[in-house]
Amino acid sequence: MNTFGNLYRLTSFGESHGAGIGGVIDGCPAGIELDMEFIQKELNRRKSGQSAITTPRKEADEVQFLSGIYQGKTTGTPIGFIIWNRNQHSADYDNMKEVYRPSHADYTYQAKYGIRDPRGGGRSSARETISRCVAGAIAKLVLNQYGISIQAYTSQVGDIQLEGGYNVYDLSHTEENPVRCPDPVKAAEMEKRIAEVKSKGDTIGGVITCIAQGVPVGLGEPAFGKLHAALGQAMLTINAAKGFEYGDGFEAPLYKGSEHNDIFYNDEGKISTRTNHSGGIQGGISNGQDIYFRVAFKSVATILMEQPTVDTDGEETILKAKGRHDPCVLPRAVPIVEAMTAMTLLDYLLLRKARD
Amino acid sequence: MNTFGNLYRLTSFGESHGAGIGGVIDGCPAGIELDMEFIQKELNRRKSGQSAITTPRKEADEVQFLSGIYQGKTTGTPIGFIIWNRNQHSADYDNMKEVYRPSHADYTYQAKYGIRDPRGGGRSSARETISRCVAGAIAKLVLNQYGISIQAYTSQVGDIQLEGGYNVYDLSHTEENPVRCPDPVKAAEMEKRIAEVKSKGDTIGGVITCIAQGVPVGLGEPAFGKLHAALGQAMLTINAAKGFEYGDGFEAPLYKGSEHNDIFYNDEGKISTRTNHSGGIQGGISNGQDIYFRVAFKSVATILMEQPTVDTDGEETILKAKGRHDPCVLPRAVPIVEAMTAMTLLDYLLLRKARD
Amino acid sequence: MNTFGNLYRLTSFGESHGAGIGGVIDGCPAGIELDMEFIQKELNRRKSGQSAITTPRKEADEVQFLSGIYQGKTTGTPIGFIIWNRNQHSADYDNMKEVYRPSHADYTYQAKYGIRDPRGGGRSSARETISRCVAGAIAKLVLNQYGISIQAYTSQVGDIQLEGGYNVYDLSHTEENPVRCPDPVKAAEMEKRIAEVKSKGDTIGGVITCIAQGVPVGLGEPAFGKLHAALGQAMLTINAAKGFEYGDGFEAPLYKGSEHNDIFYNDEGKISTRTNHSGGIQGGISNGQDIYFRVAFKSVATILMEQPTVDTDGEETILKAKGRHDPCVLPRAVPIVEAMTAMTLLDYLLLRKARD
Amino acid sequence: MNTFGNLYRLTSFGESHGAGIGGVIDGCPAGIELDMEFIQKELNRRKSGQSAITTPRKEADEVQFLSGIYQGKTTGTPIGFIIWNRNQHSADYDNMKEVYRPSHADYTYQAKYGIRDPRGGGRSSARETISRCVAGAIAKLVLNQYGISIQAYTSQVGDIQLEGGYNVYDLSHTEENPVRCPDPVKAAEMEKRIAEVKSKGDTIGGVITCIAQGVPVGLGEPAFGKLHAALGQAMLTINAAKGFEYGDGFEAPLYKGSEHNDIFYNDEGKISTRTNHSGGIQGGISNGQDIYFRVAFKSVATILMEQPTVDTDGEETILKAKGRHDPCVLPRAVPIVEAMTAMTLLDYLLLRKARD
Repeated sequence: MNTFGNLYRLTSFGESHGAGIGGVIDGCPAGIELDMEFIQKELNRRKSGQSAITTPRKEADEVQFLSGIYQGKTTGTPIGFIIWNRNQHSADYDNMKEVYRPSHADYTYQAKYGIRDPRGGGRSSARETISRCVAGAIAKLVLNQYGISIQAYTSQVGDIQLEGGYNVYDLSHTEENPVRCPDPVKAAEMEKRIAEVKSKGDTIGGVITCIAQGVPVGLGEPAFGKLHAALGQAMLTINAAKGFEYGDGFEAPLYKGSEHNDIFYNDEGKISTRTNHSGGIQGGISNGQDIYFRVAFKSVATILMEQPTVDTDGEETILKAKGRHDPCVLPRAVPIVEAMTAMTLLDYLLLRKARD
Repeated sequence: MNTFGNLYRLTSFGESHGAGIGGVIDGCPAGIELDMEFIQKELNRRKSGQSAITTPRKEADEVQFLSGIYQGKTTGTPIGFIIWNRNQHSADYDNMKEVYRPSHADYTYQAKYGIRDPRGGGRSSARETISRCVAGAIAKLVLNQYGISIQAYTSQVGDIQLEGGYNVYDLSHTEENPVRCPDPVKAAEMEKRIAEVKSKGDTIGGVITCIAQGVPVGLGEPAFGKLHAALGQAMLTINAAKGFEYGDGFEAPLYKGSEHNDIFYNDEGKISTRTNHSGGIQGGISNGQDIYFRVAFKSVATILMEQPTVDTDGEETILKAKGRHDPCVLPRAVPIVEAMTAMTLLDYLLLRKARD
Repeated sequence: MNTFGNLYRLTSFGESHGAGIGGVIDGCPAGIELDMEFIQKELNRRKSGQSAITTPRKEADEVQFLSGIYQGKTTGTPIGFIIWNRNQHSADYDNMKEVYRPSHADYTYQAKYGIRDPRGGGRSSARETISRCVAGAIAKLVLNQYGISIQAYTSQVGDIQLEGGYNVYDLSHTEENPVRCPDPVKAAEMEKRIAEVKSKGDTIGGVITCIAQGVPVGLGEPAFGKLHAALGQAMLTINAAKGFEYGDGFEAPLYKGSEHNDIFYNDEGKISTRTNHSGGIQGGISNGQDIYFRVAFKSVATILMEQPTVDTDGEETILKAKGRHDPCVLPRAVPIVEAMTAMTLLDYLLLRKARD
Repeated sequence: MNTFGNLYRLTSFGESHGAGIGGVIDGCPAGIELDMEFIQKELNRRKSGQSAITTPRKEADEVQFLSGIYQGKTTGTPIGFIIWNRNQHSADYDNMKEVYRPSHADYTYQAKYGIRDPRGGGRSSARETISRCVAGAIAKLVLNQYGISIQAYTSQVGDIQLEGGYNVYDLSHTEENPVRCPDPVKAAEMEKRIAEVKSKGDTIGGVITCIAQGVPVGLGEPAFGKLHAALGQAMLTINAAKGFEYGDGFEAPLYKGSEHNDIFYNDEGKISTRTNHSGGIQGGISNGQDIYFRVAFKSVATILMEQPTVDTDGEETILKAKGRHDPCVLPRAVPIVEAMTAMTLLDYLLLRKARD
């Protein structure tokens, strides 16, 4: 199942150390002007080697479009694309061919398929997410035309977390620091924490918060296509994601119905709510308020410390990983969260258009 | 999108105050002996009027099978079924026809479809989940043959929560109290809290924890069909669900990689892990360890207190709900969580068989 | 795979001698006034016992709607429905339980599933098609609003066939004879032929032609969703269908490109074609001209003559079928062909709306 | 809808004069040794410039695999691939940018999408089918392991047609002539006819017959997933296909039930049929006999003769096509028919495995 979406669909392919990472976008509306600069900028936000706290693997991550575009515009036919792999150090993985890295996908892939590409994690590498950023960038270009915008940011690293919701921050500061956190003080703390952890060969996790604004009323397909269920699934397909919550999420149980309910009022002719505990979605359908949700990410499984494990023969052994790795996925996962959000919202927008 | 699943599929239909709730199960393996007593018992766990802390609406909730069964066994053809609605008090909803209940689906359904059945919430009523319990019960019967078992329980109500994971409890006590909590002391506290809240016409939320044991290695379909993403989507389609996490979930960020990684060892010939922070899923594929996850539920939106709101003309008004309502969905949601888990695991088991 | 369609979807269930035949229609636009008289009339066109040349099994075939309708209008939620079986003579099939009827689905179902409901052919009975007529009738009601009309007729029985295309007939005469053939002279011949064949306990096949008018330009989804491919698949799912052709079909090879090409011209501001060899579809997309196609049906497999066969143990034996059977499916298949056409066109219309 | 299949899935992309034609194969079983020589040979059968009766456009059509393969074997992850376009003469299409070629997809694409790539027909070019040949070749490699073989041949060109069914020919001669007809005498006639037609700038159609042998009992998914419906849909997605029939097809109406029924007998312990009018499929499920079917193709729409038409402004004009074109698609469509058959059968084999 390497296809995501119903009407706006991404089929992705590629391994970390194969020829490249690519995909096919099917169902993109025709006549969309492809702003190549914007698309590349989105890819650059995800790419490695951006700062001292990401992996030093250097990849240009330039996308080559293969079809579906004529004179700079989408034609409605499938958009094939590829990002060639260039900076592979496959030899770094030689000692991992026969060894299962703890909390990685090595063992489960081997058990499921009976074969796996061990170089750089093969298909299970987070490098796979580049294709999502391409499809997400194009989705954003379409959503822009409908006045829908999406913004994600790092809201927690380890136990350092932002106080309060997205409303108390100026999100335009998000991209000003390598952690992608809109609070410069907390961002500095987070950056320091990541650097510390990295210096010991260890890794750390965190939480990303995402907001979608301008989403019209009526997106969401009950019963099994509830909008938050689609967003949740989308987020949980991102490598290292461990949890998803929207609106009050896991804090919702702390509120009684009388405290949690969002009271409707007439906002100069438009039905609005005084609070937004619901996170912009009621009964699985968007209600016109801001959609917001949070995604938890675990620490990266690959650490540069010795760990006991077993080899492919089941013999116990000690692994010391080499290679170039992120000490924390959060900064680079921010654009991926946005991309999956954009793809999901566009898909549901198209579904809604069909039903109008 | 009223169909769930890839190979084991439920298509559901029905409204709270219509003829009934039903569905079609497609892709059920042939030759399964349908234990009708078991299926009805599963439905009874979900049904209303079980105790003082659930809605007094009394429904027998007896399932009538319409097809797909011959001489007590499944034939591989679609299994149609219906649970007739009997105890409807549609008049209770007369005053809600023209009014949008806060944090309910009234407004979003009306805005999306331009029409809605206001009686009892119509399609957005949690009564829709009966069909899931039927499909889930049959899925459990199939999973039993593979040695897979599923058990959910209430782990939090309001701010009362169980300490520690599922391992420290004897889950066989879960069904011994109306809250479905395996710790009898906490269960009593939770029951008392729900009764208090109910007495004020208010409502309360909580968290359900679910464990699947005996799941073989190899279930899960990267990249977009990761097993936990499918489980997350499944859970988030349940009414009032606000969040999903598996393994360490939102606590994962608190652990460094060196603390979070699950070390492999050779357990008498079988590859196992010394800890299970991963929640039984690595790289989106089951690794043979216990799968566990948690689902957050908000308080029920319908409270028996006055609330400001707007009517269908956008005029501000005051709503005082009537009708029979649950003060807390948790107890009745436990079997629904299990049902969705069973459907998802069976679906992925069939997918795995296809790829063997 | 008992679900048909992408956005307008029918999931069907039911066996010939079980509780009934039913289904769930998902994705029907909201706010459609359901003309119950029209729907029942469509079902009546398909039902048995209409004339001397159809099976004498008498069924009222009244549809009971179970959900998705409020105050006579569709609500956008799934429409469950059932047609209860009433006039079953299951005893007629007692001698077939252990015997495979030639050219029927008995053997293949048994081999595939290891179990089957032998009463009246179980799921493989053409009685399953009632659910399609329900979904097709509702689709017609929606298509009417877009000015799209569909008309099928019997164009061949045995070797008796209509000369010329649909243009040379007044199709309003189609329903005036039991064969559903617009040419009264040929209709009488066909009726006589069927009666003759029936009198010997034998059966006969034929061809149905179908025309869709008013279909707008732009329906069809290249490459694998070509409109004629969807129509072909739809037709070939009807019991006893053996072939599908559109436009010139199997006669197309007889024309050179210079003879077959449909020349474009400007028809008072609208682009039109001087001929319509293409059958209204070019490159898999409707071009605004009439869509027409033909479907071949074999003779009914159940004959009331002795036939050699094998039993479920593989022993050779002689079968003499009992039961009430059609000597020719054509007359009753006409509304089924229309129903599948309506479902397909509505599905593709909704797809097109999503992409606009 | 550029994805084909349920479990073995091809998503294709690419235009005639863009960067190339490619695709992603998802769901291919792991551990399949990829015989590159065989795959290239299959592509060569489809490629242009093979003989005097195909288009002179010269393309190497070498496939470059991008992912999903490790040490020569499939890994179960998606197989991305591309065939680069090299020999484009886009200038040949300059005069067609503003003109709709009769019976081509120019007008319908423009009307549907509001934009199109006019060079070489863009996405509607038959060059798109290369990706099917890649996915089909790999499917054949998997089917080989199950003893399933597929063979297609040209059985009709214009009015020249083979007498009798596939049984009377030695199909191993099929590839010995440029027409791909197993009867050398008829092949010579067909070749001559094509050459004649070509010399006038005209084109001609025909029929391809396809046989699948060794298909086990039990492939096919009632009601809407009947095996012949899937094959029919698959064939009708091929450019220029106008009809599909299996078994007796459009001749079936000529036989009475007593003549058409395939009598079962015990063939040394295996249940077999004395005739095979059914074409190896009964009730939508394979019965273990040979599967055979026929596909009608129209003459190529692009002729090198003057034709009246309209331009994109709706003005009437005269078109004289340039470019390199096939006078007859049949010879090159033979491998495409086989490829679509292989993909469909593998898909249904995997579905069957899931249900076992």
